[in-house]
Amino acid sequence: MERLIDTYRQTNVQLSGHGKREVGVLKRAFEQVREDEPSDQYGQGKTIRQFEEKMAHVLGKESAVFFPSGTMAQQIALRIWCDETGKKAVAYHPLCHLEIHEQDGLKELHHIEPILVGDENRLMTLEEIQALPDIACLLLELPQREIGGELPTFEELVAIHEHCRDKRIYLHLDGARLFESLPYYEKEASEICALFDSVYVSFYKGIGGIAGAILAGPKAFCETSKVWKRRYGGDLISLYPYILSSDYYYELRKDKMQGYRDAAVQLAARFNELEGVWTTPLIPVTNMFHLHFQGDEEEVGERMVRIQQETGVGITGHLVEKDGYCSTEISIGDVYSHITSNQLDDVFRQFNSK
Amino acid sequence: MERLIDTYRQTNVQLSGHGKREVGVLKRAFEQVREDEPSDQYGQGKTIRQFEEKMAHVLGKESAVFFPSGTMAQQIALRIWCDETGKKAVAYHPLCHLEIHEQDGLKELHHIEPILVGDENRLMTLEEIQALPDIACLLLELPQREIGGELPTFEELVAIHEHCRDKRIYLHLDGARLFESLPYYEKEASEICALFDSVYVSFYKGIGGIAGAILAGPKAFCETSKVWKRRYGGDLISLYPYILSSDYYYELRKDKMQGYRDAAVQLAARFNELEGVWTTPLIPVTNMFHLHFQGDEEEVGERMVRIQQETGVGITGHLVEKDGYCSTEISIGDVYSHITSNQLDDVFRQFNSK
Repeated sequence: MERLIDTYRQTNVQLSGHGKREVGVLKRAFEQVREDEPSDQYGQGKTIRQFEEKMAHVLGKESAVFFPSGTMAQQIALRIWCDETGKKAVAYHPLCHLEIHEQDGLKELHHIEPILVGDENRLMTLEEIQALPDIACLLLELPQREIGGELPTFEELVAIHEHCRDKRIYLHLDGARLFESLPYYEKEASEICALFDSVYVSFYKGIGGIAGAILAGPKAFCETSKVWKRRYGGDLISLYPYILSSDYYYELRKDKMQGYRDAAVQLAARFNELEGVWTTPLIPVTNMFHLHFQGDEEEVGERMVRIQQETGVGITGHLVEKDGYCSTEISIGDVYSHITSNQLDDVFRQFNSK
Repeated sequence: MERLIDTYRQTNVQLSGHGKREVGVLKRAFEQVREDEPSDQYGQGKTIRQFEEKMAHVLGKESAVFFPSGTMAQQIALRIWCDETGKKAVAYHPLCHLEIHEQDGLKELHHIEPILVGDENRLMTLEEIQALPDIACLLLELPQREIGGELPTFEELVAIHEHCRDKRIYLHLDGARLFESLPYYEKEASEICALFDSVYVSFYKGIGGIAGAILAGPKAFCETSKVWKRRYGGDLISLYPYILSSDYYYELRKDKMQGYRDAAVQLAARFNELEGVWTTPLIPVTNMFHLHFQGDEEEVGERMVRIQQETGVGITGHLVEKDGYCSTEISIGDVYSHITSNQLDDVFRQFNSK
């Protein structure tokens, strides 16, 4: 729906995100960086090494490697664990990024067979994991983005960890939004990561950088991942535009995750008071939730267009039509705090007035 | 040799390159870019589309796709031509980038068997190409970097093109340094590319950008390459740090290639006058040549260290020891023009005075 995205782009503030993805994001990150700060060079040099060492420490892992993308990092992680065990099968959630957003890269490039665990509308259970056939690696995504950012309890994570350890199944963490999960667990990143053999984190979701990812794990695993990074063409002569901006926005936002989550909880509560509107989870556990509206895309879209035009607040630029309702994703970032309470009241008044 | 690279880094000017690879390269490219210039988004948006269309036009191809690296772009090009023909074999020079710098990515990720054509110390010949078994694709690198940037004549290129056309072998151009070759051919890029089915060009060699590559060819080929780019994890949410800087440095340097080449020819002539020193090619055909010194690494290295310290001119930071001599690569860029004629005379006086 063209008008939906157009009116969304014309709003001054939005419920989601850290603001527009534009060159200013790069410029702000580099304002304080000296001109003579040296580039990394094919994975070497202090610019990349310092950030890798810092993130290895944050994640409590022996070693860490900077990658241009999580797609590249995670396929490589699974490949390494497959090679390590001599098995060509891994397991993950049916709505895992590798399954729905990567054009079957894992299968096409590595001939690794993924086993989809559980139902796509909920988290996988320990029982489902226990029933898996022999696999090299289980990938868990924390939070599970495509179902609104759900999280298992820490106790469930420990039980999954123990099962995998006993069965000699490598456990990999898709932590694209790991930092966003920490308020729920009330733990440090390293305490969560200690349950996993390898971890990927992203720097352009809650952190709001330009692009980039870290893959962390044992030293030998990370060294092998560098060989694969070269094979993939991800070992660029210079990754510093992503490294230095990732570091900048990590420092800027790492301690704001509790605030984003609190805002998500409050906002979801207000939406859930509306007729024909509900969220999943009902009470968000991270900074994100899915927002559902009864009605078809045309009808719901028109309503959004009108509200966005009249209030100047961006709700969404994109709706997914389901069976009798439409859905979108809300992901709280810095911009939410720029919305005045009057503006927000105005939004909900408009929703109420049909 | 630690002291060689250290003294090289301490020099103010160097025979090769466009200056130090540091954050200033990024800052200069973005100085004039507006803060509200939108990011590309997973390969979409005007920032990436405009540059792709521009380069498709420059290279005379129907379509073009921006990639983070040539490694990724070229493996994908060869894979597509293999799939197109149903064959799993390609051919290239023994010192092709895919053979020596990519950790066997083509074999490990695609199980494509490369056939190495000809002798590693010279260009491949038409006769050697005619003697090849059935292959999907022949890759030609213009200029052949690892032998000092040699180039076949245009007539030889035409003959290779006609042979491949007749035998239904796809012809791919590794044009990492294509722009640097144009003065030799006295032709437009599109006239060279017309002989090839697909073309890759780089933006951080002679062009001196941060990183990035363009893959160009028929529309269907390019569309398929985008699917593979996604599989590889190269379809980043934002590639603009590389795209906009590639464009900036392309515009800055595309018309300077003749000057770089003229300087390379003059500089090589002066080296060839020295005793125990010679270049390949003897007369450079692009902005680059290999520079050889009789003696072992220790002896030649010490001499370089002294000359670099005494003249402030960087010759090299890295020597490769061969059988009785040492080699390095010289690649002329903007910095060469900052060396005064007195400084250069000083360098050659030092070389003469042993």
